[in-house]
Amino acid sequence: MKIYDISLTIRPDMPVWPGDPGVTIERQSSIDQGDTANVSRLALGTHTGTHLDPPVHFVPGRKGVDKLDLHTLVGPAYVVEFDVEEAITAAELEAAGLPDDATRLLCKTRNSQLWAGDPTEFATDFVYLSPDAAEWLVDHGYQLVGVDYLSVEKFEMAGQGAPTHHILLNAEIVAVEGLNLAGVSEGRYTLVCLPLKIQAGDGAPCRAILIDDDVSGGSDR
Amino acid sequence: MKIYDISLTIRPDMPVWPGDPGVTIERQSSIDQGDTANVSRLALGTHTGTHLDPPVHFVPGRKGVDKLDLHTLVGPAYVVEFDVEEAITAAELEAAGLPDDATRLLCKTRNSQLWAGDPTEFATDFVYLSPDAAEWLVDHGYQLVGVDYLSVEKFEMAGQGAPTHHILLNAEIVAVEGLNLAGVSEGRYTLVCLPLKIQAGDGAPCRAILIDDDVSGGSDR
Repeated sequence: MKIYDISLTIRPDMPVWPGDPGVTIERQSSIDQGDTANVSRLALGTHTGTHLDPPVHFVPGRKGVDKLDLHTLVGPAYVVEFDVEEAITAAELEAAGLPDDATRLLCKTRNSQLWAGDPTEFATDFVYLSPDAAEWLVDHGYQLVGVDYLSVEKFEMAGQGAPTHHILLNAEIVAVEGLNLAGVSEGRYTLVCLPLKIQAGDGAPCRAILIDDDVSGGSDR
Repeated sequence: MKIYDISLTIRPDMPVWPGDPGVTIERQSSIDQGDTANVSRLALGTHTGTHLDPPVHFVPGRKGVDKLDLHTLVGPAYVVEFDVEEAITAAELEAAGLPDDATRLLCKTRNSQLWAGDPTEFATDFVYLSPDAAEWLVDHGYQLVGVDYLSVEKFEMAGQGAPTHHILLNAEIVAVEGLNLAGVSEGRYTLVCLPLKIQAGDGAPCRAILIDDDVSGGSDR
């Protein structure tokens, strides 16, 4: 069994969505200062680093992160690489040749290179999912879609109706954002994407891994 | 495939270890206030709720949470119920009849009942692992041990040398604390315990699940 970590490291200088809370990690007790143990206080936005969007992020009154079905967050997933400069559209998804029964898609793009060298600045020109790609995912019964920068949305559209988010979240498709897929090839894996279980959370940082079952000679589940 | 969530919900009024930072969840932008999306700021101690202890929690200079091998945190695990009032000792572990090749043990005790009804007060009289139980785990090649209250240590010993922690963490056995095993029966499962990847973290909240492979008719891995 081979495990790929597709999560970002949480660090104080990591880029966050403009206007979102920054990350602080403060040592609260320290062995070096005579305390018994090392303990810290972490503060961060609910959409920091590798994180996911439950419906209530954009649709008031809907499901929070603690109510998401774990069966959505664990199971077969397809990593597909899209050689596009700006957007993944419905045409790209159609052309990807995904199996009819696929329900989880992770989109690898040039975005994954943006994580090289532990950047500190937010990039606005990331590859995003077009609204018609979101519609395609709804029409094809997807439960989860993952992207390799901090939003599924075109940067300029986030404050202008955020159509991609609305289409996905109204359909209860979980959006996983801030993945780093640089070390992963195209193919089928078992995804395990586990968010912090924040009460009524409008989002949550998560740790996401891909398990390559074939390496283990395990079952094709 | 059946998935059991053995994680605590992160909420502002949850009990934390005395002296540790409390939990705050503050809405930073709100659709009800005219913002585009709901986003919050979460602040919490690194040893809040369901969390794990890497070596550097008690041993300066040792591995932080971001350097833990994911293969330690994912794999076969045994849930064993211990009907003890105060401590799990080496004798109890010996009597449990665990397989020789077991490397991950989750200890279910009366502690799991302490989570019923979403308590707000910290309980000091929880069941803990005695130092000789920690030695037993080292001697038998364990990689991970989980408990169902907020520490593996007897409450009064945490400030007096914390022997159980030191034995486990010096041996690089990961301690997972704050599990809720009330809904899980004894047996063998696949554990997936994923902590936030906090840079050099002295601990990290995590989401932990048990997968019952037998239900899926999957492989016995």
